[in-house]
Amino acid sequence: MYNAELIAVGTELLLGSIANTDGQMLAKELSALGIGVYYQTVVGDNPKRLAGAVELAKSRADILITTGGLGPTCDDLTKNVLADCFGLKLVSHHESEDRIRSYFAGIGRTMTENNLRQAMLPEDCTVLKNDWGTAPGCAFSAQGKHVLMLPGPPRECGPMFRIYGIPYLHAQGLTEGQIISRTLKLFGIGESAMEARLPAELVDCPNPTLAPYAKFGETELRITARCASQEEGAALIAPVEAQLRDIFGSLIYGVNVTSLEEAVSRLLRQRGLTLSAAESCTGGLLSKRMTDLPGATDVFRGGVVCYTNDLKADVLGVSRKTLRQFGPVSSQCARELAEGCRQLCGSDLAIAITGLAGAAGDDFGTPGGRVYIALADGRDCQVKTCDFGHERERVRQMAAHTGLDMVRRWLD
Amino acid sequence: MYNAELIAVGTELLLGSIANTDGQMLAKELSALGIGVYYQTVVGDNPKRLAGAVELAKSRADILITTGGLGPTCDDLTKNVLADCFGLKLVSHHESEDRIRSYFAGIGRTMTENNLRQAMLPEDCTVLKNDWGTAPGCAFSAQGKHVLMLPGPPRECGPMFRIYGIPYLHAQGLTEGQIISRTLKLFGIGESAMEARLPAELVDCPNPTLAPYAKFGETELRITARCASQEEGAALIAPVEAQLRDIFGSLIYGVNVTSLEEAVSRLLRQRGLTLSAAESCTGGLLSKRMTDLPGATDVFRGGVVCYTNDLKADVLGVSRKTLRQFGPVSSQCARELAEGCRQLCGSDLAIAITGLAGAAGDDFGTPGGRVYIALADGRDCQVKTCDFGHERERVRQMAAHTGLDMVRRWLD
Repeated sequence: MYNAELIAVGTELLLGSIANTDGQMLAKELSALGIGVYYQTVVGDNPKRLAGAVELAKSRADILITTGGLGPTCDDLTKNVLADCFGLKLVSHHESEDRIRSYFAGIGRTMTENNLRQAMLPEDCTVLKNDWGTAPGCAFSAQGKHVLMLPGPPRECGPMFRIYGIPYLHAQGLTEGQIISRTLKLFGIGESAMEARLPAELVDCPNPTLAPYAKFGETELRITARCASQEEGAALIAPVEAQLRDIFGSLIYGVNVTSLEEAVSRLLRQRGLTLSAAESCTGGLLSKRMTDLPGATDVFRGGVVCYTNDLKADVLGVSRKTLRQFGPVSSQCARELAEGCRQLCGSDLAIAITGLAGAAGDDFGTPGGRVYIALADGRDCQVKTCDFGHERERVRQMAAHTGLDMVRRWLD
Repeated sequence: MYNAELIAVGTELLLGSIANTDGQMLAKELSALGIGVYYQTVVGDNPKRLAGAVELAKSRADILITTGGLGPTCDDLTKNVLADCFGLKLVSHHESEDRIRSYFAGIGRTMTENNLRQAMLPEDCTVLKNDWGTAPGCAFSAQGKHVLMLPGPPRECGPMFRIYGIPYLHAQGLTEGQIISRTLKLFGIGESAMEARLPAELVDCPNPTLAPYAKFGETELRITARCASQEEGAALIAPVEAQLRDIFGSLIYGVNVTSLEEAVSRLLRQRGLTLSAAESCTGGLLSKRMTDLPGATDVFRGGVVCYTNDLKADVLGVSRKTLRQFGPVSSQCARELAEGCRQLCGSDLAIAITGLAGAAGDDFGTPGGRVYIALADGRDCQVKTCDFGHERERVRQMAAHTGLDMVRRWLD
């Protein structure tokens, strides 16, 4: 098994302005490729210290992967230092020069000359194209070591590694067999409760492995098989997946999907139905998530961000009596919002969210953190009452999650 | 100036299951204390590799801070390794033993004996109490170095460092003066163009330092002064800030604010005005950002996510003729959306965003990536035509940024 060492370059990491999420992403990907990681180092934009870290990594790793320091400014010195450490020259890569020029033309900005520094790459390297920004990455092997240099911004680093870096590692024969994984996504169960329900024989099995992950309000189970072929991998994974489906049932909202909104969009498209949303405390978060996905127009019609009582009443048709009697944060109001939104937007389904995203309660005796979520389908309207604690961001995220999950369960 | 090296211990970090957010937190805190950080290292739960990392850190840092590996299981070996490296014995700390026993009694759980391993601490160390979990931290000095060991879970590590770690560093005389910084936030200029306009004497100045940063579509300049007092710091920063204001003028949208939406909210509150938003291609993103902030109700009334032509016409009053003649992505439509939204929501200002968030153009000859953004104030309506390239996520983010920036400039 080969092992890789990760070197993150950037004073902003040493100052704590950002977390080293590239390191986490790479560690996860490499582990799935059967490549070990024993050390990760963070150094600043300092050539001597970076060179020291590179020499140390050369002494103990097969593969060196750097992130950051490929940009246009004089702080960006990763390529110079790595080329020095491996006795290589930097030469200008014409295709990358052209790409940088057209990137700026495309976004209608004037390119300053220092941007062309980014096209200076170690001689004879493999260029890793940057389809998400300006600085290309690169890969080379020298002195018995393999080196990959990736840009720092996570939205460039991640896709570049997945799309160009991993095939490079495969081509160099640094990965072992194939890695196939399926990720079951769950909503409605916490990490420790999920773990407690996992049978020991699945958790301890070396192949396929089972890894639980938790994100803000969501959990996932990744089954990963090391195998010689797709078929072998599928055969290893299938019985584990079946067992997990028995255990978790409808808590599983999708497999190999990135998010609840993606699961909802797929189901809406399959059923030929549309959705709209009336959002009070989430202020557009659910709509934003539905429209993050390309092609959202087919399944999402829009909605109203109804922060005020007037918008709730005048635009969405909530009766003034309901607002006076039960308040804007009430199951009655949620119900009327959902039905009003469905009619206003001409959608098959509508979700409405109204709640108190904070610690403070309201004059109607509704406690802080309380959220009412309604789903109207034209015949019926279900309302869920939730208490999501007192932290604003968590209340908003959980409310949007829960709204999407109600739609998913209705459609499923 | 003293310098610290951070060593994070944990296989879950090397596997990428979690990001090293303790490292970020500590780096930020230390930099504010005037303690430099040149290296951060992540190692697994492996005694040999951890000892190697400790020896290396001893050779180049004044202060070693470890995070993780203080727990009850046999994986948790940080204290053993550090004690070995510094020639110290581990002894049981009775008060910590008692605290661990009562912690378990308090949550009504039976304590397994291995939990008492956590009370084994280097002889004569300063114990850092864990008020948030079971494993105590500790600090000692030996062989001319200062060592702090902190638990891994961020919700224990952060408060323990702030409440007990920082006073320890002060007491040992390791902190120097004060660090004061001001961050100027800019919108409308890229990182390389911003840097090209910075005078060399500011970039090279050792105190105060000037550091440029770039985030998705935004840039910032952080001025950091090392000083004996608040007054001295302010006096060092003021002339640099004045010079930067001369150079960048209205590109600077705020100082020490976290985001454009925060700057907009502050200005709206100061002026006693309200905003609403009609969003087509951004699908609620701008509204979501405005309502991320607590107290948004005072300045943001809501809006409409108008993904369909019907919503644009029926709810926001865009004329069918405009939609037929110019299409939904046109300056005419943006203008009518903004004015309609302002009236519907009863707000002083309204922003409208309509565009094509992708590579595909429409039947009216509008190119992909084109966005029209309108700001209506009741007397007038300005419209901005933008081309943000062909990447969906970038188009949406830049459109929301630009909309917020138009409001900011109107208010400023």
